[in-house]
Amino acid sequence: MNMDIAAVNALPYEDFVDILGNVVEKCPIITAAVWSGRPFLSLAALEAAISEFIDALPESEGILRCHPDLAGRDHQSGSLTRESHDEQAGSGMGALNSGEASRMARLNQEYKERFGFPFVICARMHDKENILRQLSARCQNERAVERARGIEEVKKICHLRLQSLVLTDSRL
Amino acid sequence: MNMDIAAVNALPYEDFVDILGNVVEKCPIITAAVWSGRPFLSLAALEAAISEFIDALPESEGILRCHPDLAGRDHQSGSLTRESHDEQAGSGMGALNSGEASRMARLNQEYKERFGFPFVICARMHDKENILRQLSARCQNERAVERARGIEEVKKICHLRLQSLVLTDSRL
Repeated sequence: MNMDIAAVNALPYEDFVDILGNVVEKCPIITAAVWSGRPFLSLAALEAAISEFIDALPESEGILRCHPDLAGRDHQSGSLTRESHDEQAGSGMGALNSGEASRMARLNQEYKERFGFPFVICARMHDKENILRQLSARCQNERAVERARGIEEVKKICHLRLQSLVLTDSRL
Repeated sequence: MNMDIAAVNALPYEDFVDILGNVVEKCPIITAAVWSGRPFLSLAALEAAISEFIDALPESEGILRCHPDLAGRDHQSGSLTRESHDEQAGSGMGALNSGEASRMARLNQEYKERFGFPFVICARMHDKENILRQLSARCQNERAVERARGIEEVKKICHLRLQSLVLTDSRL
């Protein structure tokens, strides 16, 4: 489904949240909050409202903790959200060989123990080799750097999820 | 399951969110955010941290829009969260006669059209007659009054959900 922004603006909040509620993983409250700001002039304006809400949260690590590990337990048990499943599959997380899988598990654990939130990356923009390389490198960062970097990645994921649901205004 | 606050404080964030993530309906981000504030001295301190996070949100209607209607479409389709299902069942929402069901549906719709968010009430504290009476009366309020009232009810629901999961400290 691909709606234009006028159709999005016309949605009652229940449909708005049903359709757009997971543009930030497991955070329908964000979509539900920005509905108050309708009408949006463009998809970019809707995306900006979401980004502003995220930046105004009293604490930003909570969003990161709502994200699953890449190739982690939700992936293995089949309990990923549809969006996350498709993104992880597209970046090869379902096709790790046993050496890659154990390296991913070890680095994910190291990252979580160091920072208290999971490694978040916009998987659609990377392949599995690149993801493993970045995970390894980002384990070395400071916590504040990773907190900000994780939120940047959340916004990239949100951007791509929005684009899969709402038509970009061609006049912009 | 009923853990004491020391056991709660010892949980990794993934288990903390798995167990406590729905104390505010469909808002695991709230639970995930307050994990940063461990250790909590008591259940009351954990509840206060959640309440403070809610009050510090840049927009408060989003939380309300994450709640289902009482005896509404999620109830009928069986897609309620476990917590909401049990609460609605306990207050008799599964046992409305046809007159009550149509009155509930009509008043829910009137409320949503007037305010742009659903009627939220701590169902465990009321029976079906009382809920219908309050829904009818609250439809007459101002939007700002209902926004604040809805958030109060969210906190009452959270209080009871927390009590069903975490032991109250008997020394307090």
